[in-house]
Amino acid sequence: MSKKIVIVGGVAGGATAAARLRRIDEDSHIVMFEKGEHISFANCGLPYYIGEVIQDREALLVQTVEGMSQKFNLDIRNLTEVTAINREEQTVTVKKVQTGEEYTEAYDELILSPGARPVVPPIQGLNEAENVFTLRNVPDTDRIKAWVDEQKPEKAVVIGGGFIGLEMAENLHHRGVDVTVVEMADQVMAPLDPEMAAIVHEEIRGKATLILEDGVKSFSDNGNKITLQSGEILESDLTILSIGVRPENELAVSADLNVGERGGIIVDEELRTEDPHIYAIGDAIEVKDYVQQTPTMVPLAWPANRQGRIVADNIYGKSTKYKGTLGTAIAKVFDLTVAATGNNEKTLRQLDAPYESVHVHPMSHAGYYPGGSSISLKLTFNPNNGEIYGAQGVGVDGVDKRIDVIATAIKGGLTVYDLQELELAYAPPYSSAKDPVNMLGYTASNIADGELKVVHFDEIDDIVREGNMLLDVREVEEVEMGDISGSTNIPLGQLRDRLSELPKEEPIYITCKVGLRGYLATRILKQSGFDAINLSGGYTTYANVQN
Amino acid sequence: MSKKIVIVGGVAGGATAAARLRRIDEDSHIVMFEKGEHISFANCGLPYYIGEVIQDREALLVQTVEGMSQKFNLDIRNLTEVTAINREEQTVTVKKVQTGEEYTEAYDELILSPGARPVVPPIQGLNEAENVFTLRNVPDTDRIKAWVDEQKPEKAVVIGGGFIGLEMAENLHHRGVDVTVVEMADQVMAPLDPEMAAIVHEEIRGKATLILEDGVKSFSDNGNKITLQSGEILESDLTILSIGVRPENELAVSADLNVGERGGIIVDEELRTEDPHIYAIGDAIEVKDYVQQTPTMVPLAWPANRQGRIVADNIYGKSTKYKGTLGTAIAKVFDLTVAATGNNEKTLRQLDAPYESVHVHPMSHAGYYPGGSSISLKLTFNPNNGEIYGAQGVGVDGVDKRIDVIATAIKGGLTVYDLQELELAYAPPYSSAKDPVNMLGYTASNIADGELKVVHFDEIDDIVREGNMLLDVREVEEVEMGDISGSTNIPLGQLRDRLSELPKEEPIYITCKVGLRGYLATRILKQSGFDAINLSGGYTTYANVQN
Ligand SMILES: Cc1cc2nc3c(=O)[nH]c(=O)nc-3n(C[C@H](O)[C@H](O)[C@H](O)COP(=O)(O)OP(=O)(O)OC[C@H]3O[C@@H](n4cnc5c(N)ncnc54)[C@H](O)[C@@H]3O)c2cc1C
Ligand SMILES: Cc1cc2nc3c(=O)[nH]c(=O)nc-3n(C[C@H](O)[C@H](O)[C@H](O)COP(=O)(O)OP(=O)(O)OC[C@H]3O[C@@H](n4cnc5c(N)ncnc54)[C@H](O)[C@@H]3O)c2cc1C
Ligand SMILES: CC(C)(COP(=O)(O)OP(=O)(O)OC[C@H]1O[C@@H](n2cnc3c(N)ncnc32)[C@H](O)[C@@H]1OP(=O)(O)O)[C@@H](O)C(=O)NCCC(=O)NCCS
Ligand SMILES: CC(C)(COP(=O)(O)OP(=O)(O)OC[C@H]1O[C@@H](n2cnc3c(N)ncnc32)[C@H](O)[C@@H]1OP(=O)(O)O)[C@@H](O)C(=O)NCCC(=O)NCCS
Repeated sequence: MSKKIVIVGGVAGGATAAARLRRIDEDSHIVMFEKGEHISFANCGLPYYIGEVIQDREALLVQTVEGMSQKFNLDIRNLTEVTAINREEQTVTVKKVQTGEEYTEAYDELILSPGARPVVPPIQGLNEAENVFTLRNVPDTDRIKAWVDEQKPEKAVVIGGGFIGLEMAENLHHRGVDVTVVEMADQVMAPLDPEMAAIVHEEIRGKATLILEDGVKSFSDNGNKITLQSGEILESDLTILSIGVRPENELAVSADLNVGERGGIIVDEELRTEDPHIYAIGDAIEVKDYVQQTPTMVPLAWPANRQGRIVADNIYGKSTKYKGTLGTAIAKVFDLTVAATGNNEKTLRQLDAPYESVHVHPMSHAGYYPGGSSISLKLTFNPNNGEIYGAQGVGVDGVDKRIDVIATAIKGGLTVYDLQELELAYAPPYSSAKDPVNMLGYTASNIADGELKVVHFDEIDDIVREGNMLLDVREVEEVEMGDISGSTNIPLGQLRDRLSELPKEEPIYITCKVGLRGYLATRILKQSGFDAINLSGGYTTYANVQN
Repeated sequence: MSKKIVIVGGVAGGATAAARLRRIDEDSHIVMFEKGEHISFANCGLPYYIGEVIQDREALLVQTVEGMSQKFNLDIRNLTEVTAINREEQTVTVKKVQTGEEYTEAYDELILSPGARPVVPPIQGLNEAENVFTLRNVPDTDRIKAWVDEQKPEKAVVIGGGFIGLEMAENLHHRGVDVTVVEMADQVMAPLDPEMAAIVHEEIRGKATLILEDGVKSFSDNGNKITLQSGEILESDLTILSIGVRPENELAVSADLNVGERGGIIVDEELRTEDPHIYAIGDAIEVKDYVQQTPTMVPLAWPANRQGRIVADNIYGKSTKYKGTLGTAIAKVFDLTVAATGNNEKTLRQLDAPYESVHVHPMSHAGYYPGGSSISLKLTFNPNNGEIYGAQGVGVDGVDKRIDVIATAIKGGLTVYDLQELELAYAPPYSSAKDPVNMLGYTASNIADGELKVVHFDEIDDIVREGNMLLDVREVEEVEMGDISGSTNIPLGQLRDRLSELPKEEPIYITCKVGLRGYLATRILKQSGFDAINLSGGYTTYANVQN
């Protein structure tokens, strides 16, 4: 019972679906339409080719039309746009991009994987600006790279501090261009909470100019001048507009298929739209947040690839459910790795979920082995049952590993208690006998068990202002290098002998470098009858945000 | 109800227990006996200090007696050996190492964390050999380092190719010494299966001499000559004896506590010996294999640290079970990372468990982004239900991450099917849109589902010899660089057009570079009515073993 299957879009989701369809059934007629010239290219590599980190343009083309047609016996029609879906007839109308020629093609099953396109708001002066680019595909890449190669821009402005924007900032910097990043929000990289983003801000500021809470009002001088909402004027020889993407839902909408609030095509767990013969996958669809099962949109390559395989299975009756997207994401931002999985605090607050968070700053590997560096990790969880909601990590080394381990733990339904039990590979070049993820587990479990009371970096100034006691248990020399104003210093080693200096009737807030000694101090104080509360992440988390 | 707690051994397990005991109860009297001078030192860093990778000796001393006494209010008595346990009286007899002075100390609860000592067999000539060392603690380290610094050995022999032996080989090589590794078994690193160890052998042979299946018969010339069982004679200016460790069980045995077949102290899930007031942890105990729940011994730092915390909780009534040891282990061997978790094939065969395995050789990160390298991964699993038994990885980069993810998956009770679902962090510098762990999941699931039949590297020569057809689907140029003798080449792209060249009545075995194209070929053939069987890991796994 071979079928005729038509696929719209020939890159991450579409090409993966085509390959898997062929593996399942040798006789299907599989037609893959792609409006662009290239199929199956490495979208994610594009910024690095502009940056000349990737030198070989061919390397971006994972499969060619010819190669893939042959390998998988596919009917690939590139430079051909699908312009309408005729649901009753089960056909699509297509147009050859180069000639304008139109025809229809019948399908038994239709898969939509049209992706998402860069958001381009109607900014004044944009049409006249020749040096403003968006980045989605190989032609975009060729255009930007040619501009850099030929025009040799001195100054570039990247509008939007998301993953693609920051990758472009890094790569343009790598090409010797002086980069300014302009971001409307008060932080870059939305998957991070502000105190984690603050670390990234510092990194960016070491290599480029960062303007937050400001947006573009207009372009002038053919794009060479950018006026911001604040009135500030930037000069730019090259501007990248990377303020987000929106789903390519036009085909679906005009075929009367449901789309969600933010425009994502609505599909069921089997990735089927309301039309039983039309499936949709990838950046164009609305998915469920894996943790909360609420609707969301996650334009990333893993979901597109995964859905591509699942849709093929479902078409051939190997029923497989897509269980939602965790949104595990990562980017290299200059010398930092920035990664996140699951729900951050901002999301949890919006959802009004019961949550708590912990911050730790362990070494990427054993402190006594050279080359290690401190990584900042944040875990969000449900303090009532230990359920893990998500995690964020920022650091030079070992961040990807810890986020992957936590993403795995979430998919395994593990709790913060179980994170203590993870038996991770330890030798000095790789980790510590208690891995950073174990530390998150210990710290979060102590909170969930009520063994440790914590406050957070954004509460402590108010707490001190209200006259509460903040005890800094670091050594005197550490305090001299910077402290939270209003704190009192008693080094941990002296604490047991100086308990008489502390008030018994009021809460005592405690800080140290990362939270560990503060925790030890809370244990001592609690058992001596004090009400002790630790500053999560210690001075390190606090100071990150001050920058 | 504070207690008097006596701890035997002041390093990984003992010091961790002491710290946690104090955190739980401020008033306990905690006495920690350590027969050596140092407590809480970085055992795992010792080889690297000898190699001068770690330059600062102080860095090895995680806590000092004075510092830890003060921080945790402990009664630490180093250079004091516990020589007997008097169970009836609940006392231990101790002897001061320097003076010989003896006394007894009472306990409410006793924790044994005496560790394991290097195995030293009674080899002829060993007593006269001045240049033969074992490595366990700081004095051993000082002795070996002084020998290297002062005697400037040209040739060293490392006897035993386990983790410590190979770390020593690497570090002595790093000091400019010409190293020979002698291993009795036919492979180094017992946690690996032979085809994975073969990759390590090649790496070692690039930097040192490797002698397998041979052991030391005798030392002569004050240790400067080593005669092997085979009759071969090695010259050595420095010899490291690292053929394994055995539990320090003498105290337990003479107190009539049960020990297992291999000498490990027997404890229950709460780490209690048969005496309700005596607990034992760390290298000295027998544990349960996490996957099979069979008895085993795993002398590693994570278990010792984890058990140290659990024992403290149990003593103070926070009942916590130790659920067994996965044995996740890792080592840097010259430029390779070698890691494993759970059960390997050798173990599964011994246990007669139903198992299958897969090999993949994906890139550590996206192939088009510079700096990636291929990693060899092996997964063992139950083909009947997809249960994951274990994994092994060897490669330059990204091995630790994948093994940690799989270790987490095992602890989460995930199956090979679930490995497909792991949403791991992807950007080109870190991974691929389908992570290597996803690939293991896909490949293993296909086998478990009966979609893919496989044979293994160690079966294929016989299969060809018996006259079966082995089809190599790589490109002609690849085959020219090396192939399995007796194979027939039809590149994958031509396969559909050349089916008539293949026999329908007999099985067709297929090979390619890593197994992927072979899998694609099996799909084509199967659906055209052939019986197609893929060589797991392809020519890469096969060729690794030929070296
Ligand atoms: C610069 C850049 C960097 C990225 N980096 C990362 C990263 O590091 N990690 C990560 O996880 N993700 C990254 N992504 C996102 C990732 O590439 C996408 O999530 C993924 O490609 C989505 O797959 P898709 O199949 O839904 O859409 P796409 O891969 O975009 O493919 C859709 C295709 O459909 C075609 N199409 C659309 N409409 C029609 C039509 N009507 N007819 C015919 N063809 C049509 C389009 O031309 C397009 O080629 C990046 C994306 C970009 C642009
Ligand atoms: C060179 C080397 C490298 C290693 N590398 C790694 C690695 O990379 N990764 C890893 O996971 N593990 C590694 N290990 C193993 C790890 O160090 C041990 O598993 C861990 O230290 C075991 O902890 P323990 O408390 O059981 O024993 P130990 O840490 O050995 O402590 C036991 C202590 O008890 C003392 N003691 C014994 N008997 C008595 C007595 N009767 N009275 C008083 N004191 C006594 C001993 O002197 C000893 O100091 C390495 C070990 C060595 C030696
Ligand atoms: C290139 C592309 C067409 C590949 O699709 P694919 O064939 O499904 O994926 P892969 O090449 O990774 O191969 C995976 C298949 O090989 C199998 N496989 C992988 N390694 C194997 C091995 N060593 N032995 C046996 N089988 C193996 C897997 O089981 C899987 O098959 P299955 O789905 O039938 O189970 C598609 O991923 C693509 O177009 N990618 C580029 C676009 C993109 O993803 N962009 C975003 C990221 S930059
Ligand atoms: C040094 C040593 C005494 C430390 O023991 P420890 O205090 O249990 O361990 P750590 O210093 O890692 O601290 C862990 C504790 O701090 C807490 N903690 C860690 N980071 C924290 C943070 N940022 N905020 C709050 N609490 C934190 C953890 O919850 C845990 O406390 P808990 O067990 O009460 O829950 C012991 O591990 C040791 O001797 N190590 C050297 C020997 C060794 O392990 N050798 C083998 C490897 S080389």
